[in-house]
Amino acid sequence: MGFDYAGRVERVTEAMRRYNVDTLLLSVGADMPWLFGYEAMPLERVTMAIVRSGARPVLVVPELEAPRVDDRGGVFDVVAWRELEDPIGIIADRIGTGVAIAMGDQTWTSFTLALQGRLGGRRWESAGPIMAEMRMVKEPEELDRLRAVGASADRVAARLADYGFEGQTERRVAADIAAMLVEEGHDTTWDVIVASGPNGASPHHEPGERVIRSGDPIVCDFGGTMAGYTSDTTRNFVVGTPPPDYREMFAVLVEAQETGVQAATVGTPCQEVDRVTRKVIEDARYGEFFIHRTGHGIGLEVHEAPYIVEGNALPLATGMVFSVEPGIYIPGRFGMRIEDIVIATDDGPHRCNNSTRELVIVE
Amino acid sequence: MGFDYAGRVERVTEAMRRYNVDTLLLSVGADMPWLFGYEAMPLERVTMAIVRSGARPVLVVPELEAPRVDDRGGVFDVVAWRELEDPIGIIADRIGTGVAIAMGDQTWTSFTLALQGRLGGRRWESAGPIMAEMRMVKEPEELDRLRAVGASADRVAARLADYGFEGQTERRVAADIAAMLVEEGHDTTWDVIVASGPNGASPHHEPGERVIRSGDPIVCDFGGTMAGYTSDTTRNFVVGTPPPDYREMFAVLVEAQETGVQAATVGTPCQEVDRVTRKVIEDARYGEFFIHRTGHGIGLEVHEAPYIVEGNALPLATGMVFSVEPGIYIPGRFGMRIEDIVIATDDGPHRCNNSTRELVIVE
Repeated sequence: MGFDYAGRVERVTEAMRRYNVDTLLLSVGADMPWLFGYEAMPLERVTMAIVRSGARPVLVVPELEAPRVDDRGGVFDVVAWRELEDPIGIIADRIGTGVAIAMGDQTWTSFTLALQGRLGGRRWESAGPIMAEMRMVKEPEELDRLRAVGASADRVAARLADYGFEGQTERRVAADIAAMLVEEGHDTTWDVIVASGPNGASPHHEPGERVIRSGDPIVCDFGGTMAGYTSDTTRNFVVGTPPPDYREMFAVLVEAQETGVQAATVGTPCQEVDRVTRKVIEDARYGEFFIHRTGHGIGLEVHEAPYIVEGNALPLATGMVFSVEPGIYIPGRFGMRIEDIVIATDDGPHRCNNSTRELVIVE
Repeated sequence: MGFDYAGRVERVTEAMRRYNVDTLLLSVGADMPWLFGYEAMPLERVTMAIVRSGARPVLVVPELEAPRVDDRGGVFDVVAWRELEDPIGIIADRIGTGVAIAMGDQTWTSFTLALQGRLGGRRWESAGPIMAEMRMVKEPEELDRLRAVGASADRVAARLADYGFEGQTERRVAADIAAMLVEEGHDTTWDVIVASGPNGASPHHEPGERVIRSGDPIVCDFGGTMAGYTSDTTRNFVVGTPPPDYREMFAVLVEAQETGVQAATVGTPCQEVDRVTRKVIEDARYGEFFIHRTGHGIGLEVHEAPYIVEGNALPLATGMVFSVEPGIYIPGRFGMRIEDIVIATDDGPHRCNNSTRELVIVE
């Protein structure tokens, strides 16, 4: 099933009016795939989408990538630049005279600086707020895909209960989890986190050569994409007997995560979900060990708006999708994190991840 | 074996003086790994390297990623920003008063615009020329790694002679090639190109559901990284009998590629390698079907300086590494491309790829 790209262009154009933006330029990252269904290759040959009120949208693309473009039934014009042409000049010529230019957040700085050097007297701003507003509330088909990719990740989580962790290196486990994600239907995987023993205290630990031993807690944080949409879930395993204090802390974490998920109702400010989650951990006196925000939005990208963080007063709306993932990290000892993807619906919070959140004792 | 990061910082600082740059800021992409041996996560939490003459280099990093950082024996200071702090303010405070600020090319535009908004009266420029100069000439250890990853890719090319192409989809072949690259020692693979029949006329074709049949030419362009360094090679296969004209064109392509490689001697301008390669194809009257430059540098990234393209008068220097990859693309019929990675050495051009470049007839 496809998406209504023409409708999305219309919505963006309407938002540009509200944000007083004359020209919107998008390049690498997920903004362009969301708008045009085409992803720029993240290379030195520039690809750029140009959206202006009252003009047909344009995709400027290297000639040798032009055959990959589907214009979605004429939603946008394709301008292919040839190998020895100057793409910055071609883009600059199509930007129009409007002063306010909004740039896609992940656009390479080299392209932005080149355009700034070419075009004087403009106001350059981030397209982030517009694109976040557009992409945050998911369409029904997007929700279906997020549920499906979440279920695929859950099947991997379930298989891990019978996986033999002991004696394996973190790196080996991470590679096996990535392979299982593909077996269970994922098209791609992002860098799986497997953090064992004291490494668990590093939330973004890079799996290494540490060999997993009896008594080790293991944090497994994994996901990838299926049909373009992203999964992200974290589950915890212990080989044999958990270390002292682990079970008590884990019970606190389970309660914090459940509290956060249940608070994620339509109309609740994002920061309120963070606050209630954090309060459970703080009340148990582990607050100083929960060193990150409670969650992030997810969709085409693994991190996108809305962010579930103090300072974000945005109320949750029907169709927003985000992680709830509190963690407790004890330096030098171990760490733990429970993460589910949650959809805010009119019937309350709906989890995309439903594998067991309880502590799983493994071999 | 490690790299001399302190020496690299010294070389960069010296280059900054020559380029009249006061402050160098690097973020995502390969510039920061080259300089500090640390790769920024390509996410919304900013990571930035700050290099200023007369000040110790600094790495500004999200607190929850700080445990991943190795400061290479004190080559740089690590400043970890906490979840609710403002990283742009922290970076701006450490930039100094110098007017000229050079930004790493792949830095997210959102970070650059935020810094521009904070700091008036500065001159913002691309760090591309400095970083290209630094990274273009490879150190001996880098050359060893490029040769090793090339040999790994060659082993996959050799295995493809016995691979059963007929009846497989392009997508399946691409997945199998990616798996073979890992089996042969690669740590990662980039998106493999498998373009069969008329799809071969699209140089950056995305492998799809097309089933490979007898008589199909197939362009396979593949690679990835091993120990951080990148491979990139293209080989051509035909199932059974090639289509009319294919053999004649292929002989021209082999000659063009060989001519380009042999021209890649120290002191030869990059564009001259492009010219002599192109001339062989033009003389055979296929010039209009060779629609891209002859090659690109390679190292930590699959595309980097020096580019082997008309307009680039840079003379090749000992230790530069780049592809020589002419192609002929006949719309609606087929395409072909031969690609090797070449090192410019004092003893002449040295190929990192040595699998057969002749046409391979397969099943």
